[in-house]
Amino acid sequence: MDERLKKQLDFILEIDKEKNILRQTHLSGHGRRENDAEHAWHMAIMAYLLKEYSNEPVDIAKVMIMCLIHDVVEIDAGDTYAYDEEGLKTQKAREEAAKERIYSLLPDDQKQELQALFDEFEERKTPEARFARALDNLQPLLLNNSNDGGDWREHQVKAEQVYGRQHHTAEGSAKLYEVTDQLIQENIAKGNIRK
Amino acid sequence: MDERLKKQLDFILEIDKEKNILRQTHLSGHGRRENDAEHAWHMAIMAYLLKEYSNEPVDIAKVMIMCLIHDVVEIDAGDTYAYDEEGLKTQKAREEAAKERIYSLLPDDQKQELQALFDEFEERKTPEARFARALDNLQPLLLNNSNDGGDWREHQVKAEQVYGRQHHTAEGSAKLYEVTDQLIQENIAKGNIRK
Repeated sequence: MDERLKKQLDFILEIDKEKNILRQTHLSGHGRRENDAEHAWHMAIMAYLLKEYSNEPVDIAKVMIMCLIHDVVEIDAGDTYAYDEEGLKTQKAREEAAKERIYSLLPDDQKQELQALFDEFEERKTPEARFARALDNLQPLLLNNSNDGGDWREHQVKAEQVYGRQHHTAEGSAKLYEVTDQLIQENIAKGNIRK
Repeated sequence: MDERLKKQLDFILEIDKEKNILRQTHLSGHGRRENDAEHAWHMAIMAYLLKEYSNEPVDIAKVMIMCLIHDVVEIDAGDTYAYDEEGLKTQKAREEAAKERIYSLLPDDQKQELQALFDEFEERKTPEARFARALDNLQPLLLNNSNDGGDWREHQVKAEQVYGRQHHTAEGSAKLYEVTDQLIQENIAKGNIRK
């Protein structure tokens, strides 16, 4: 097998490990905890189906691959819960080291390309990144809402924390932020999110 | 919330169930059984990274969404193992019923679009479908090969069965079929696949 294809297949096998990285979100129907690969799959389909609500026109293939690979770094760095203040302090450094190790398995051109896509996602500076980030927020919100806000209640999450994260959705999609705001308000009213 | 967006979100929540549909393939590192959402996530990333090996130029966004949604029907129809001859007889009817119910949750234009993408994938008549099908074959082959062929050994799979399924890979990618053939031959030599 030639060296380029071997490298690509080595990376493909390595990212299989993402299926074992658990998030705090639970599957609908009060299911088990979701893993990163499942979350990314769900986000990428959402991107395709909801693209009409992006504030700006997007290259949908770019949004989808951004969604699919954005958590690969968590194979080494682990999942950092959105409301874990201590974890958030070290997240950047952990993820940068992971980004270097894991993407270096690829041929150099694809390493550069995927690292750039990950950085773009993190920096929210392009329409594609802003829309992908909106989906990264909305996907767990929908699951959690379907489970009577169980994840918020378990972690005693406050409204200001939820808005602190979710307000970025408006940068990617005003329409999806309307839904977000409606669901947050309903969960505050039910006592699932603390005032 | 307007009716169109409500339908889209209902579909998005429904397909969460795909994360509970287990396949016969096991995760690398002799892990647990893989589910359909994880398999689809892996395939879509493979599509993006390996697109240079498609026999014909492809619309990569189309290949990716085809990969992501091709197993949605299994929420109702269940997973049919590639070498389950009885199951294969009823697979088409079970999946057609599921295709109608599940995609009908979407607004009509998106129902038509996604049903057409599923049919295209099944019929292998376009470059995108042929390449997506190659990945549907290669993804479990890579995992199984990494696990010393455990899934083949468990089901006492014969070489003619493996080739019967995998030879279609050549229609999507001659290059990926070279790798496929090499891996099958190695696993026959090791006794993981029966002659």
